[in-house]
Amino acid sequence: MDFSYNEKTKEYQAAIRSFMEENIYPNEDTFVKQLNNQESRWEEVPQIIEELKKKARSQGLWNLFLPDEESGAGLTNVEYAPLCEEMGRSMLAPEVFNCNAPDTGNMELLSMYGTAEQKKKWLDPLLAGETRSCFAMTEPEVASSDATNITAKIEKKGENYIINGTKWWSTGAMDPRCSFAIFMGKTDEEAPRHKQQSMIIVPLDGKGVTIKRPLSVFGYDHAPHGHAEIEFVDVQVPEENLILGEGRGFEIAQGRLGPGRIHHCMRLIGAAERALEDLCKRVQNREAFHRPLAEQGVIREWIADSRVELEQARLLTLQAAYQMDTEGNKQAKAAIAMIKVTAPSMALKVIDRAIQAHGAAGVSEDFTLAMNYANARTLRLADGPDEVHKRQIAKMELSKYEEDIHART
Amino acid sequence: MDFSYNEKTKEYQAAIRSFMEENIYPNEDTFVKQLNNQESRWEEVPQIIEELKKKARSQGLWNLFLPDEESGAGLTNVEYAPLCEEMGRSMLAPEVFNCNAPDTGNMELLSMYGTAEQKKKWLDPLLAGETRSCFAMTEPEVASSDATNITAKIEKKGENYIINGTKWWSTGAMDPRCSFAIFMGKTDEEAPRHKQQSMIIVPLDGKGVTIKRPLSVFGYDHAPHGHAEIEFVDVQVPEENLILGEGRGFEIAQGRLGPGRIHHCMRLIGAAERALEDLCKRVQNREAFHRPLAEQGVIREWIADSRVELEQARLLTLQAAYQMDTEGNKQAKAAIAMIKVTAPSMALKVIDRAIQAHGAAGVSEDFTLAMNYANARTLRLADGPDEVHKRQIAKMELSKYEEDIHART
Amino acid sequence: MDFSYNEKTKEYQAAIRSFMEENIYPNEDTFVKQLNNQESRWEEVPQIIEELKKKARSQGLWNLFLPDEESGAGLTNVEYAPLCEEMGRSMLAPEVFNCNAPDTGNMELLSMYGTAEQKKKWLDPLLAGETRSCFAMTEPEVASSDATNITAKIEKKGENYIINGTKWWSTGAMDPRCSFAIFMGKTDEEAPRHKQQSMIIVPLDGKGVTIKRPLSVFGYDHAPHGHAEIEFVDVQVPEENLILGEGRGFEIAQGRLGPGRIHHCMRLIGAAERALEDLCKRVQNREAFHRPLAEQGVIREWIADSRVELEQARLLTLQAAYQMDTEGNKQAKAAIAMIKVTAPSMALKVIDRAIQAHGAAGVSEDFTLAMNYANARTLRLADGPDEVHKRQIAKMELSKYEEDIHART
Amino acid sequence: MDFSYNEKTKEYQAAIRSFMEENIYPNEDTFVKQLNNQESRWEEVPQIIEELKKKARSQGLWNLFLPDEESGAGLTNVEYAPLCEEMGRSMLAPEVFNCNAPDTGNMELLSMYGTAEQKKKWLDPLLAGETRSCFAMTEPEVASSDATNITAKIEKKGENYIINGTKWWSTGAMDPRCSFAIFMGKTDEEAPRHKQQSMIIVPLDGKGVTIKRPLSVFGYDHAPHGHAEIEFVDVQVPEENLILGEGRGFEIAQGRLGPGRIHHCMRLIGAAERALEDLCKRVQNREAFHRPLAEQGVIREWIADSRVELEQARLLTLQAAYQMDTEGNKQAKAAIAMIKVTAPSMALKVIDRAIQAHGAAGVSEDFTLAMNYANARTLRLADGPDEVHKRQIAKMELSKYEEDIHART
Repeated sequence: MDFSYNEKTKEYQAAIRSFMEENIYPNEDTFVKQLNNQESRWEEVPQIIEELKKKARSQGLWNLFLPDEESGAGLTNVEYAPLCEEMGRSMLAPEVFNCNAPDTGNMELLSMYGTAEQKKKWLDPLLAGETRSCFAMTEPEVASSDATNITAKIEKKGENYIINGTKWWSTGAMDPRCSFAIFMGKTDEEAPRHKQQSMIIVPLDGKGVTIKRPLSVFGYDHAPHGHAEIEFVDVQVPEENLILGEGRGFEIAQGRLGPGRIHHCMRLIGAAERALEDLCKRVQNREAFHRPLAEQGVIREWIADSRVELEQARLLTLQAAYQMDTEGNKQAKAAIAMIKVTAPSMALKVIDRAIQAHGAAGVSEDFTLAMNYANARTLRLADGPDEVHKRQIAKMELSKYEEDIHART
Repeated sequence: MDFSYNEKTKEYQAAIRSFMEENIYPNEDTFVKQLNNQESRWEEVPQIIEELKKKARSQGLWNLFLPDEESGAGLTNVEYAPLCEEMGRSMLAPEVFNCNAPDTGNMELLSMYGTAEQKKKWLDPLLAGETRSCFAMTEPEVASSDATNITAKIEKKGENYIINGTKWWSTGAMDPRCSFAIFMGKTDEEAPRHKQQSMIIVPLDGKGVTIKRPLSVFGYDHAPHGHAEIEFVDVQVPEENLILGEGRGFEIAQGRLGPGRIHHCMRLIGAAERALEDLCKRVQNREAFHRPLAEQGVIREWIADSRVELEQARLLTLQAAYQMDTEGNKQAKAAIAMIKVTAPSMALKVIDRAIQAHGAAGVSEDFTLAMNYANARTLRLADGPDEVHKRQIAKMELSKYEEDIHART
Repeated sequence: MDFSYNEKTKEYQAAIRSFMEENIYPNEDTFVKQLNNQESRWEEVPQIIEELKKKARSQGLWNLFLPDEESGAGLTNVEYAPLCEEMGRSMLAPEVFNCNAPDTGNMELLSMYGTAEQKKKWLDPLLAGETRSCFAMTEPEVASSDATNITAKIEKKGENYIINGTKWWSTGAMDPRCSFAIFMGKTDEEAPRHKQQSMIIVPLDGKGVTIKRPLSVFGYDHAPHGHAEIEFVDVQVPEENLILGEGRGFEIAQGRLGPGRIHHCMRLIGAAERALEDLCKRVQNREAFHRPLAEQGVIREWIADSRVELEQARLLTLQAAYQMDTEGNKQAKAAIAMIKVTAPSMALKVIDRAIQAHGAAGVSEDFTLAMNYANARTLRLADGPDEVHKRQIAKMELSKYEEDIHART
Repeated sequence: MDFSYNEKTKEYQAAIRSFMEENIYPNEDTFVKQLNNQESRWEEVPQIIEELKKKARSQGLWNLFLPDEESGAGLTNVEYAPLCEEMGRSMLAPEVFNCNAPDTGNMELLSMYGTAEQKKKWLDPLLAGETRSCFAMTEPEVASSDATNITAKIEKKGENYIINGTKWWSTGAMDPRCSFAIFMGKTDEEAPRHKQQSMIIVPLDGKGVTIKRPLSVFGYDHAPHGHAEIEFVDVQVPEENLILGEGRGFEIAQGRLGPGRIHHCMRLIGAAERALEDLCKRVQNREAFHRPLAEQGVIREWIADSRVELEQARLLTLQAAYQMDTEGNKQAKAAIAMIKVTAPSMALKVIDRAIQAHGAAGVSEDFTLAMNYANARTLRLADGPDEVHKRQIAKMELSKYEEDIHART
């Protein structure tokens, strides 16, 4: 278990840090202003984004998430994780470095499982940052914590597949640049439970695709990317859009989620670090009852608890990254489930304390705290609620003693 | 300590419940739609509000908060508290019954301390639901947890007062019907610490008053009422607008806050009850891993914990109401501080569990959960952060043994 | 819901308070010393106990728990609860006032369900404080959280019953004065699940009864009463010892537990009040880093949190008592389950903070804190673990919406 | 940050594991029985201890804690930590391997700072496991969380020092084999705050040394080692017993505590692992409400939470060990403070869940849970309460931004 940051990581980390100091933090307000001045929050993308993307790409800070050395930076999870933490400090950063979800997951998926043709048509523009994509899995009518509940259909008809179903929480689908969804549905309801699902590429401009509405997270719409409810009615898609083969959907989903969870967790750690930094600065600058807030014991306890929780969550995440790198996604299953329940809760606690230390300012748009809180809260639900991951952790833990139990009885 | 609901309370409770079933819940969506269809979120008020107000008033469900029997319903705190709980179930309800903050506090204040002339000019239109008002106390540049930090100035000049200062979190100030602020500032910086402040009525259309911007709460703008940042530059106000007299501001603030805190807490209890109801219904309607969510032990634990926390918070709040009724605001100080730290945290826990049980739907606009969470979170800060109230509770507790300690040493 | 303490209660409360100040607190050490000086911790009872009992009885502070006016004080639950709180402040007090578990439960049970003969033989000496008794229900080999798991047998043979089984956690069974157990076992394994059990009086000096060992609670042996593991092998008991009739055991158990739970909870509240008092005194008498501990913000937060939790737990318990008095045990089922999970956890939190404020002294015998902590911890398990009560609360809560659910589907 | 267990560590770990399986676990009961059968709990040591020590020493499992390669195993902190975890699984283990506190700390101290003569006289018998020692620092009359509060005196008089003071919580001082205390007291009250204290070796059989009493932890006396209150009245000690020099006491204390804290934390992790193992086995072997406890969602959540908390605490502790090894005690200050507040609280949570899952058995002597709980609870106080360590963590965190703050203002 060697989590040391090697030279490559340290260089990238330094480069990202200075890029963020110079280009990202000072432009967080610019982004909001440009967005608010647009006619519609959804039909345009604030130009600062494309400007910054160009700059980041020119500095080689681009597609860092992709383990593939040719298209990406060729970093292992342990190497990339610390960079993800840096990017997590600003909601703008991931997109600027073309490392934003769900595109990263989609790019990885296409890179791993796509045909040459699929790669050319759908992956390359994503890698170039020219288009965006979404992931259409969650459905409004069933508990998506259990993936076998999915009701959407993908039916073969001649040389096409016919797509039907309603999906929601398709992040990025509102974005005017979003060109396609990776859609999960059932190709065969009679197959064994984990072989019923398939994934297919569905262009969003196709006939029968209707973006019903953007969903909000707490009061945030996350424009211009947004989270969409999308209706698919008899959408016709050529058979070559199917990924990997019929019945492979569940398998792909499993593979897709591992690295993504590490990214999410490290970004949350970055967001929590920023919150703790905000807290520490704020309380040294405000007075109440004749002394700086920083001298109040309760606030000092918040700071200590936050530091301790942050350190632990980071080590746990690095451990998971290390296991993925050295033992593979499957072996790292428990580790990944553990970070999935740890990082969001940790971030919520840290950010909540920072909010409290900021007074009413903390819940407003003047700081990134409330927005990051909402985001972290959502990550206790996205990719399966905490409870599903805890079930899995418990199951693995109990299984260690099963033999023992049987031997005894 | 008799917290039983008497006949009068039960009748009002029943009347409010049926009004809400018939008129409020079914129109929550109407309100949102009308608001979203307005040209601006701030310049108009969705007409459903005025329609419902008319209906509520005609049924005698109006100004129930006002202990004054003539203008209000003449209810004690113990009698009114349960009605407040009912209204807390919907964000629309308080205004519809003309029982919405901060107008209630302002009406009470004017009713208690206002001159006949002030009442006629400012209170009567509020009681009639024709205008709205705001409270301008919190300032962006100082920790408002310590009220003596206030920097705004109210200076006598001839027959006028000159007002200067920047206030924020003036709830309701964005509302087109909002006609005046009750403004807190210092009239005499040389006076003893709690005699420096005064309160004065400042019309919002006056010269030198600039509404700078609406503030958001976890992404919610709370249009059309909103929370405003307001700049007051050399605003001239006639001396008859001063309330009670120079140096009485702190004293009035203390009096104003007691009942308001009970209202806030009971509304939070109502919001939490609705969340628990939502949770119970949802989990009986969704399945995961082949059985209803309602059969999962963890979810049952959430339900039990929520019920237990709710019962306790309600009893504590009723106890505070009872003490206010029987012993006065001052005697009830500890009790009020206790509910102020209990109800918001309780509501946050209950609503958070309901969000988790709803999956991603829980953070969206499809339920009132996320909005109520944001609201409850803010109430851990509004009227003083938890920490200030806990300090006070601890101080009173420690003082019980002081004599003891001195005797011993 | 009127929880006011009436005159009768206030008088008893005052009398108990002065008795405790004069006789109980000053003799806590006496008790420990006498016990430690005995040859055996189990074969004698420190004489201070009998001295104090005599004194308490002479002052009419005796059998206050018994609702029966003739043998007891004729108090309702709401009237008795506050007295129980007072007694809970010292581990010595309940026995001194002949209000100690499990004798109280057994006395109530015999008083309600006993035959005239049973009362004369077994109840009267208990009421007089001449003997003690125990309750033999829990078994080492099965999860006693589910009462139907019980395996002990009560078999009719001629005019006798033959008793077989191993019981443990029979509190008081080690006491040399303990003369009998109320024993729960199955008379008919074929009967419906809640009709299989019966209760019978088993003299402890009978043939076939073996006290195997005392059990400790976190290192405490609770001598001289103790908690025993008892083996019953072919113990012959006359049929007139059966209580109420065959198959009534479960029903009696339900009735027995209601008031007992209120007593337990109020005693815990008393123990927590004493801990908070200890904490407040300690921190005003100790300095660290140049100021009294009492000025540290974190400690003030502990005090405030403790006060708030205590108030809520007391109100909840009084509410349960009130419901038992006015609506009966059955209606109060939810209320009783709620206090059963609330009071122990509250007490643990408050006492734990007091321990922390006392430093190492807090875990030692120099204060009652650690002992009370161990006691409170056990009450999260005794009479069913928290989880069983929470299941029940959740079930009742969910059932409120069942109709609703069925109507909808 | 490389926490991998190297070959040396893995070999020792395997050897300790099999030693424990074969010799320690099966003799935990033997120890208790021998102790209970002794005339006095204090005057003898159960012979099983010396038997097992002999065996462990013969297998080279001896003094593993000592970084010195000659007398000890020459292990780094990262290498020794995992062994400490193994030993923490049984209260017997540390002494059997001669790795028990406070002797380890004393041995390290003498090894680092002792003169050749001191080593020969006091260290060598400890290394051989022939004697034991104690540490006399904490005082009953002052808050020992602030080390400068110490009142004990060490006064030079001719060629001797005269020792006065009352100490308590001197662990091991009750043990008949305990030959000396390392005593902390003030040599110069006029010196700068951290130069007033010195450490000196005080033989326990000296004139003026009175062991007043054993202290209990919850109800445990921890015989035969115990925790003593000791009075030192005009005890005369030769000047060559002074360690390192006058005024060096604070400095030595700092050095002594670092590795000791890692040991404590790793042992707690071992105790928590054993508790989780007990829990997992128990719940697969017990049924309630017709299914194994292991299938209850709430219990599964306990298991998952425990696994997650354990992993994090271990990683944090290994990180501290790594920093001590690579950067030194001083640089690892924050890391050590962090584990000191994390490991005990983690262990308390995990063990508490295991207790709950065991029902009443969990609080009894039938499992090691309650005893380990009491031990872990004490470690939130020993070597400074949590609050002192959190203050330090917060101070270090805040200092990161101080420059920033000054620059701004």
